[in-house]
Amino acid sequence: MYISEPVARLINELMKLPSIGPRSAQRLAYHIVNIPIEDAAKLARAILDVKEKIHQCRICHNLTDEEVCSICTDEARTTGMVCIVASAKDIPPIEKAKVFRGKYHVLGGVISPLDGIGPDRLNIKSLLARIGTEGINEAIVATDSDTSGEVTALYLAKILSPLDIKVSRLAYGLPMGAALEYADEITISRAIEGRREIGSTPAS
Amino acid sequence: MYISEPVARLINELMKLPSIGPRSAQRLAYHIVNIPIEDAAKLARAILDVKEKIHQCRICHNLTDEEVCSICTDEARTTGMVCIVASAKDIPPIEKAKVFRGKYHVLGGVISPLDGIGPDRLNIKSLLARIGTEGINEAIVATDSDTSGEVTALYLAKILSPLDIKVSRLAYGLPMGAALEYADEITISRAIEGRREIGSTPAS
Repeated sequence: MYISEPVARLINELMKLPSIGPRSAQRLAYHIVNIPIEDAAKLARAILDVKEKIHQCRICHNLTDEEVCSICTDEARTTGMVCIVASAKDIPPIEKAKVFRGKYHVLGGVISPLDGIGPDRLNIKSLLARIGTEGINEAIVATDSDTSGEVTALYLAKILSPLDIKVSRLAYGLPMGAALEYADEITISRAIEGRREIGSTPAS
Repeated sequence: MYISEPVARLINELMKLPSIGPRSAQRLAYHIVNIPIEDAAKLARAILDVKEKIHQCRICHNLTDEEVCSICTDEARTTGMVCIVASAKDIPPIEKAKVFRGKYHVLGGVISPLDGIGPDRLNIKSLLARIGTEGINEAIVATDSDTSGEVTALYLAKILSPLDIKVSRLAYGLPMGAALEYADEITISRAIEGRREIGSTPAS
């Protein structure tokens, strides 16, 4: 044992995080050993706080530390439009693009038969309930452009279209196979402006 | 505010870590939001533990949670040789190479006049004290191959050589300008085996 137990344990915990390999974990651990204790305490406190304070918005399933998230309570936003995303982490990049001013609905995943995830596992009942009560007449499906994202978009189009709702899909600019989470603001602006109705030619 | 305060604060704390940019920090933060609370607590605890339990070894300045580190107390190790490193994080990669079986001495930095770091800021007094008491007759200087590392090695050679100590320097295999921390085991093995005395031709 040439690394003392507390450092080895921190390296081990850091390696559980996504895209942190053994060398990154070691580098981060030695960095943390050397920072002031107040800074380490702030980091530890921030980690615990997100677990203790963050939960799903009662309306849209976005992450929030309130009962209802700041987007759902924002009266300046358009109420007739909803942007449907797979995960809460897809909301910040869309917000940064500053093109969409409606509300959101977080599905909590995408349809993926190989992983045993069917529509019943997604937040679709609450979406239908909102359409009934919030006067929504347009839904933009902003799932990723991979197979699961496309399948989910088609499924949503199928169940929403009979409700006399215009259902569109992010289109222009998003490169196929890329994750929405990493798209830049301009690409997302283009995708929102050029959205097309599902099963039709590009919308004007 | 489309990211709730606890999540934004965690992203902000994560961005203070080395090589974690805004997107990595966001990705890590959303990951932490979704892991079980026990796992988040383990990570937070590990961060606090290294700050509370880890300090410098009284003898060699390696990081340890004891008074004296596990390398200094290991009676199976050669006592006549010391490997001098800039930082405690340089010890694990050398140990992994399994070629060096002596003791270590951590300088706590390298000489860097531009940063105002002179030899007086490094753990050199304690090194000289050890040479007097531990019967050390060979020192391998394993500082990085950059300018500060070379300057530090030359300085150590100058003050140690009059004490009738063979002073060598890691040599073969370490690419110029590369950080020791990221070298692989084979490169480090080659560098230890091919070490050369400072100011001479390669040692046999």
